[in-house]
Amino acid sequence: MIWRDIERIRAEKPLVHNITNYVVMNTTANALLAIGAAPVMAHAVEEVEEMAGLAGALVLNIGTLSAAWVEAMVRAGREARRRKIPVVLDPVGCGATRFRTDVSRRLLREVAPTIVRGNASEIGALLGGEGGARGVDSRHSPEQILNAARALSRSAGCVVSMSGPVDIIVAGDSLARISNGHPLMAAVTGMGCAASALTGAFAAVNPAPFEAAAHAMAVMGIAGEMAAERSTGPGSFQMHLLDALFLLAESDIRDKLRMEGE
Amino acid sequence: MIWRDIERIRAEKPLVHNITNYVVMNTTANALLAIGAAPVMAHAVEEVEEMAGLAGALVLNIGTLSAAWVEAMVRAGREARRRKIPVVLDPVGCGATRFRTDVSRRLLREVAPTIVRGNASEIGALLGGEGGARGVDSRHSPEQILNAARALSRSAGCVVSMSGPVDIIVAGDSLARISNGHPLMAAVTGMGCAASALTGAFAAVNPAPFEAAAHAMAVMGIAGEMAAERSTGPGSFQMHLLDALFLLAESDIRDKLRMEGE
Amino acid sequence: MIWRDIERIRAEKPLVHNITNYVVMNTTANALLAIGAAPVMAHAVEEVEEMAGLAGALVLNIGTLSAAWVEAMVRAGREARRRKIPVVLDPVGCGATRFRTDVSRRLLREVAPTIVRGNASEIGALLGGEGGARGVDSRHSPEQILNAARALSRSAGCVVSMSGPVDIIVAGDSLARISNGHPLMAAVTGMGCAASALTGAFAAVNPAPFEAAAHAMAVMGIAGEMAAERSTGPGSFQMHLLDALFLLAESDIRDKLRMEGE
Repeated sequence: MIWRDIERIRAEKPLVHNITNYVVMNTTANALLAIGAAPVMAHAVEEVEEMAGLAGALVLNIGTLSAAWVEAMVRAGREARRRKIPVVLDPVGCGATRFRTDVSRRLLREVAPTIVRGNASEIGALLGGEGGARGVDSRHSPEQILNAARALSRSAGCVVSMSGPVDIIVAGDSLARISNGHPLMAAVTGMGCAASALTGAFAAVNPAPFEAAAHAMAVMGIAGEMAAERSTGPGSFQMHLLDALFLLAESDIRDKLRMEGE
Repeated sequence: MIWRDIERIRAEKPLVHNITNYVVMNTTANALLAIGAAPVMAHAVEEVEEMAGLAGALVLNIGTLSAAWVEAMVRAGREARRRKIPVVLDPVGCGATRFRTDVSRRLLREVAPTIVRGNASEIGALLGGEGGARGVDSRHSPEQILNAARALSRSAGCVVSMSGPVDIIVAGDSLARISNGHPLMAAVTGMGCAASALTGAFAAVNPAPFEAAAHAMAVMGIAGEMAAERSTGPGSFQMHLLDALFLLAESDIRDKLRMEGE
Repeated sequence: MIWRDIERIRAEKPLVHNITNYVVMNTTANALLAIGAAPVMAHAVEEVEEMAGLAGALVLNIGTLSAAWVEAMVRAGREARRRKIPVVLDPVGCGATRFRTDVSRRLLREVAPTIVRGNASEIGALLGGEGGARGVDSRHSPEQILNAARALSRSAGCVVSMSGPVDIIVAGDSLARISNGHPLMAAVTGMGCAASALTGAFAAVNPAPFEAAAHAMAVMGIAGEMAAERSTGPGSFQMHLLDALFLLAESDIRDKLRMEGE
């Protein structure tokens, strides 16, 4: 299933439109190219709707926000949804500042993304309400974290893809757990953002967003393990990760995948 | 001829002023440093004219546009032309959205760049008119693509440097074809943008813009071949490309150059 | 002393809030992660004060300015100072254009940064007045350069950390000279900006800003030497530098440190 998606990405080279943060634009574009997709970055209100309409998926990432970018994200997101193009929201830093929390919730409400991909802290803050006031993060129990993901999936009607030592993908009653990955991934910026971008690439070729989200996290984790074997630190890891995404073979997935559920 | 330009870049370290896109700023700056030039990025309307006036060349790249940046590009471009400083325009994504096509044509008209560097699709969309309505891209015949480059060169009075499997550089009746390069270059973001930036560096030291454009494409292609020999994928390629630009020797150019015409 | 700071950074993972330039955001974030700190980039006026209030240090870098970013820097800087959070100012290109000089001086005046980190030319331009009209740069004598650093430290009441073949750190009568580093550092963009970011990380854990500034420059220089030993050019250097920051051991500092004074 995962391999079939990768073959489709490599064959169809889906255009993935990213409105993302400055820190990771290069990493994100290169991760998409390495897996076989065609990245485009465009944020001007004059063109985001037209660009989103050309894309196989839209990825919204709030890592370095400003008011004009929020407006562009809303417009692009609505146009993509109107045309049934899948939208991935990465609410980077949601809960850290009031602005990020407000913008994340506005995008959740006004765009209704297909998939929300973030860490436990961001998902908890996005959920808000009673759970959100206390929040959840990596210090909470696996059950509490899973409950937050389920609650957001139900209330927002979206797939929730929550990264952590074990990635959790939830859509209604469906659940997948992926335990691939490597600690070096936390020592490089943009790994979560790259996972969100890859989620867009998989969603562009797989009409089941729950599968697309799970496959993207699995591929990111497997490529991370392959890169870590060759790396001496975060600098070499970043380089080898792109090579691993590019070189990924069916046997790598068969041998390394640690996914339950789906 | 190429080697003489490189020696001049390394000796004179020309300042190349870039108003370019967020995705490739780091790659572009590092490519310019690796070849021996001094990059500066500046886009504020408060300073672009002053900065352009200090530079040996100005490079305008519309990869991640917004209205304020367009205004800065126009101002910087006019000031550079007024001072006889060469201007390179890279119309990234021209033809993909109306906004990019309009801005590219406005820059062509109001700045009158010395050199336009893009791929066949972008050059075709920039040309517009009858040819442009149908457009040209890599699926067209070599003759159709060459005709589009010639038509743009004549109508805009600029050198046209069109990248592809074979790069085509046209200025009026002059024509050069360069068949250096490697397929891995298409798997890394910013290679075209880096070629445009290097074109600026060569134009800063070589008063003949046709030669400057051809030499830059040749050097980019040769360095790409050198990097590919040592690379296992796009991550390692990106690293080795900067090393290759830095280490480039006269013998590399003599042994590897595949250029016709000029 | 240096090692104790590194141990504290690795243990406490201080949040370093950067309002910095587009070219180096990725490099800066990765350098901070590699040393063990937690980087965040945020520039929206809606959130910079809140974010600065969460941080262990604030780093302001004017490499790619625009008016809205200046406003954000002033607000974040004032809030950080009000809360006794150390602020590092990197006046990139101060002296190159009137806009950069004006903004640098405004930030010096209105934020009163804890540490100013720049090269001799930038420090000279920031100082202004009689000395500044003539300016200082790397062509001046070591005594003239030292005098400029001292003059700025006294007039602005800040630590001045001036990079060059020998780094000079000045605070009132205190002086440290560090002669670590490698020429390849000048062939990669963002090395000065990364040094400023690391200065923020050290200032977040060491309450003596003179020490923090000196330790950051020493660590940057030592990691640069370690990286250069393994590199064939600027591309591989950039990768190995992140690995070196990540792998840095107490023995590396003991064996390689070339610091006088403090």
